[in-house]
Amino acid sequence: MATLKDVAKETGLTVSTVSRVLNNRGYISEETRKNVYLAMETLNYHPNELARSLSKKSTFTIGVIVPHIRHPYFAELISNLENEAYLRKYKILLFNSQDKNEREKEYLEMCNRNRVSGIIICSGNIEMTEFKGLNVPLITIERYLENGTAMVECDNYQGGKIAARHLIERGCRHLIHFSGVRETAMPADKRATGFEEVCMENKVSHTEIVTSANQYHALEYHDFIEKVLKEYPKTDGIFASSDLIAAQLIQVCSKLKIAIPNQMKIVGFDDVNVASLTTPRITTIRQPIKEMARVAIELMISASEGNITPSQTVLPVTLVERETT
Amino acid sequence: MATLKDVAKETGLTVSTVSRVLNNRGYISEETRKNVYLAMETLNYHPNELARSLSKKSTFTIGVIVPHIRHPYFAELISNLENEAYLRKYKILLFNSQDKNEREKEYLEMCNRNRVSGIIICSGNIEMTEFKGLNVPLITIERYLENGTAMVECDNYQGGKIAARHLIERGCRHLIHFSGVRETAMPADKRATGFEEVCMENKVSHTEIVTSANQYHALEYHDFIEKVLKEYPKTDGIFASSDLIAAQLIQVCSKLKIAIPNQMKIVGFDDVNVASLTTPRITTIRQPIKEMARVAIELMISASEGNITPSQTVLPVTLVERETT
Repeated sequence: MATLKDVAKETGLTVSTVSRVLNNRGYISEETRKNVYLAMETLNYHPNELARSLSKKSTFTIGVIVPHIRHPYFAELISNLENEAYLRKYKILLFNSQDKNEREKEYLEMCNRNRVSGIIICSGNIEMTEFKGLNVPLITIERYLENGTAMVECDNYQGGKIAARHLIERGCRHLIHFSGVRETAMPADKRATGFEEVCMENKVSHTEIVTSANQYHALEYHDFIEKVLKEYPKTDGIFASSDLIAAQLIQVCSKLKIAIPNQMKIVGFDDVNVASLTTPRITTIRQPIKEMARVAIELMISASEGNITPSQTVLPVTLVERETT
Repeated sequence: MATLKDVAKETGLTVSTVSRVLNNRGYISEETRKNVYLAMETLNYHPNELARSLSKKSTFTIGVIVPHIRHPYFAELISNLENEAYLRKYKILLFNSQDKNEREKEYLEMCNRNRVSGIIICSGNIEMTEFKGLNVPLITIERYLENGTAMVECDNYQGGKIAARHLIERGCRHLIHFSGVRETAMPADKRATGFEEVCMENKVSHTEIVTSANQYHALEYHDFIEKVLKEYPKTDGIFASSDLIAAQLIQVCSKLKIAIPNQMKIVGFDDVNVASLTTPRITTIRQPIKEMARVAIELMISASEGNITPSQTVLPVTLVERETT
């Protein structure tokens, strides 16, 4: 592979002049610049970013650790994180922790050893002690972390309230909330609080059904949903903590001949592509995923430049009415 | 940040002994090893992989370039690629080209400058000339590339045949195939060939409807599907080139009061999670995505070690019967 020296030789310039062209430093005539780029192309020279990173102390790389890539919420989030990073000339090292503590630790160590500029983490099993010695910003999305730099979340509490109000306005009186995994405390838990408060204010019966980590990782809830619906036959409205659960609710209702929205109304959460792909389409609480990704990337970069950044940023959710209510 | 020298000082060992422990080279007593690791923890020392990569000439990093992260097929593929890489101690730099030529070029240059060990690309607009000077293996998945190292694809041709046979066996006589984008030649084009051949053998009428890149990137086909179904009112069987199109076909049929599977039978392609989340669930041609990811990673690593690797690997597809046929 060609080196900087080869480029210097080819152009008859000194190594330091070529280096100045590459780093855009000092005065360089247009002719010199052109000659250097021409020689780079001829010799097929590509600057070594690793070497540059070592001397500059910045790799322009962001470690992104998610628990689940296939889940439509994370696929959407990763897509937006990559784009926001690209727009700022950063790149993404992607890690799938499967919410396994061991893997999270390994990935953090990998991030450390590869001198990433910062870490964005949406995986929630790491204990605070594991983070000793991370010298880079650590941004969490929808996860708590005692010694993280900043946390980005959507307004989960309002989301729960909006869902309850909407179902009650539509005439539902026996509500169920299929909530997320409750093994680790998460911002999403506040959906249940908001939901419950509105139900109590309106004296509407409500039950929280907690789902499991196994279901979350297998993306599979059918049998569980069927059991619950048979156990609570009066149910006429359901708030599902993801559009993925809502899609499976539609399937189970179809199997049990429960008409949607006439006999059963459903509100999902996230507004990822699956919400628009079911029949009927899912009424849902929209997380502003694009904006959450933008804020996370901006916070990470700003913190890595030594700025003081907000430790918590909450972005608003909205109701998207479709055919399940 | 602590350095190797600090670890040596703390343990009273020489830098070269500490280095031997870290690189697992030569004889080291268990006691010395323990002392070094203890000192590393105390001093919070993390080896600098960038520096090691520079001297070892391998970064154990794979550049993965896809056209679309949110699309359920690529979300599934990325998830499997990350896992297969992790199992072999490699990491993934993820790039979303949006099938834009400019972005593909930039990403390739980024891969080059960051000295990735290899590139896996599923994005198809790059001209052969762009690749001049890539010194690392270049593996394509479901894309052609004249000077790639190796190509991995599923048996698209058989997939088309299986879909046609299944629809005809189920009694369909007026078939439509919603095929993929035809702006660039892709292995997926062979689905249409296989489908057409079986229709002709069986003297069954068939029409190929080509979809556009805009639809593909927006994941939005509803209006287009409705127009086509009205234009071909006799249609009783459809082969969709993705489960995503099949899900939208179900929605449009529901809107037009066409009963599935009684009046209309549908076969999708991919078998990604959306195929199991619709009502009714989608009969589909299953791509062995996990195996394709494993083969791609293995080929990349093997080629990077200087081995001769197969230039084309085709993996078999299977019919998964569900409720749309």
